[in-house]
Amino acid sequence: MNLIVLQETDFISAGLVRLSGRRLEYIIQVHRVEPGQRLRVGLLNGDIGFGTITTLTDQCVELKVELQYPPPPALPLTLVLALPRPKMLKRVIQHVTALGVKKLILLNSYRVEKSYWQTPWLGRDKIHRQCLLGLEQAMDTRMPDIILRKRFKPFVEDELPELAAGSRKLLAHPVAGEYCPIDIGETTTLAIGPEGGFIPYEVEKLQEAGFHPVHLGPRILKVETVLPVLVSRLFPAR
Amino acid sequence: MNLIVLQETDFISAGLVRLSGRRLEYIIQVHRVEPGQRLRVGLLNGDIGFGTITTLTDQCVELKVELQYPPPPALPLTLVLALPRPKMLKRVIQHVTALGVKKLILLNSYRVEKSYWQTPWLGRDKIHRQCLLGLEQAMDTRMPDIILRKRFKPFVEDELPELAAGSRKLLAHPVAGEYCPIDIGETTTLAIGPEGGFIPYEVEKLQEAGFHPVHLGPRILKVETVLPVLVSRLFPAR
Repeated sequence: MNLIVLQETDFISAGLVRLSGRRLEYIIQVHRVEPGQRLRVGLLNGDIGFGTITTLTDQCVELKVELQYPPPPALPLTLVLALPRPKMLKRVIQHVTALGVKKLILLNSYRVEKSYWQTPWLGRDKIHRQCLLGLEQAMDTRMPDIILRKRFKPFVEDELPELAAGSRKLLAHPVAGEYCPIDIGETTTLAIGPEGGFIPYEVEKLQEAGFHPVHLGPRILKVETVLPVLVSRLFPAR
Repeated sequence: MNLIVLQETDFISAGLVRLSGRRLEYIIQVHRVEPGQRLRVGLLNGDIGFGTITTLTDQCVELKVELQYPPPPALPLTLVLALPRPKMLKRVIQHVTALGVKKLILLNSYRVEKSYWQTPWLGRDKIHRQCLLGLEQAMDTRMPDIILRKRFKPFVEDELPELAAGSRKLLAHPVAGEYCPIDIGETTTLAIGPEGGFIPYEVEKLQEAGFHPVHLGPRILKVETVLPVLVSRLFPAR
């Protein structure tokens, strides 16, 4: 937790928040702070600044909050990702959020096991929680929009064209196309397949939707490795 | 397992291997193959090619092996990494191996909890196993060299200068220096701190050893995210 993310409901009066639970524990255990000290805070979907501790007990902490500057810029990237296995899903959502992606579509694909869609980790609250962890890690406040689409064909045919309109459309596909471009600085929609990749039919449908297959050379990487690799390659922080 | 990695001891005669256990299970379950079919294989620390199934039973599989081409090139990168927490260590070793790093030093640091050094995951066999998983994933055969150093100062003062001699020396440090360079194509030694970063004394020692602090902007990333980000940024596959 590099940033304490505040919600509107934390405010007990103008400029004053009261926190308990996980954020209180964090403040007590990790910071070993005392009244008067300043911690970095940010308002969910709002600005970042400092909170000065005014009261600290075992039950709650109160902070006088001053928000001063905007969160780090969002990436101009929409990610269309075949639903990863539940074990990986949590980490992937945290990675995606920490990297600054603001729109993620979790999509079905032939090689996504049906059982993956049953995981409790796809619950609204659980996804929100993983996003929050990603924001706290990366000192960001803007919650990404995460959309679940259980049917590949209707999504790619009916929704994707509008969603990806005006953006560069890339399909990360280990065995086809040319090397993924570097440092493109363009609004982009990036599709990433499941373990084993999209099947030829799916690749064809994505190509029909204007997606251009790109690869990263002979190494085949797991989705949780390839995600930061691709994001860093397309949009190196500068 | 995108590549079946063979060991010298798997050979029962010239060009013929017999596999059981995990690799047999993989072949049966994932490939649903039959005699005559070809699978991609590679010899540990050797070349890559195909294995043609000659015999397949519940107990073992025999493959006629032809090795034709070298594994993907290694990165000209030595990684000096503060020992991550055990839960993350496994994944980090797999990431590092899959990305093509061939030398990794796991180093102590003030913010590395002492208990992390007690984890069974640091055992020779366990590390070897995680590396193997990384090689199988990335279709590589060259085992990385992983070195454990439990004392920061003697390592940085006495070993690191020789280890990093002639290379570009970068220290990933979220709060100092300039942006990490992009696509440097130079032999590099990269130091990455623990959660919370190296302490000022450690940063100073690394700077004395010629390391130049670089950062990635306002987002603070976990080591398992920052690793692929940095590798992809310094050495984009092309």
